[in-house]
Amino acid sequence: MDAGITILGLTAGALTTLAFLPQMLKTYRSKSAKDVSSLMLITFCTGVFLWLVYGYFRKDVAVMLANSITLVLNLGIFYLKFRYK
Amino acid sequence: MDAGITILGLTAGALTTLAFLPQMLKTYRSKSAKDVSSLMLITFCTGVFLWLVYGYFRKDVAVMLANSITLVLNLGIFYLKFRYK
Repeated sequence: MDAGITILGLTAGALTTLAFLPQMLKTYRSKSAKDVSSLMLITFCTGVFLWLVYGYFRKDVAVMLANSITLVLNLGIFYLKFRYK
Repeated sequence: MDAGITILGLTAGALTTLAFLPQMLKTYRSKSAKDVSSLMLITFCTGVFLWLVYGYFRKDVAVMLANSITLVLNLGIFYLKFRYK
């Protein structure tokens, strides 16, 4: 049972991390992110960074790994949003 | 030290949960979510739902609470995206 729950957590983490890849690709292709909220990106990136620090203090590599990928993807969306403003 | 780390986690959770409120409000006001990726929303909602189930099995109320709010907000964005298509 415990292994199943761990796999569930890893799957959830992978999905909520990789979910931002299609958004980054869409923004890159359409050269537009007008409808994407800057306040969401700023708030979300701040929260994800804190999760990264949280993972460091808890010595939880999974939390650090998932959140560092999420942070890179969201900073990428943020960069593209301003580049195509 | 431990209390500090817990507060850090709660803050991170609050930010990555409430981050989607400005996106929902922006979509509601602008009546447009063309630039928001449907694949991101579907993948993210699936992942957040799995985190909710994970929290249930781990009996972790904080994980369940944060992810149920995140799920409601993202389903809201998803609904508005198709309503204004």
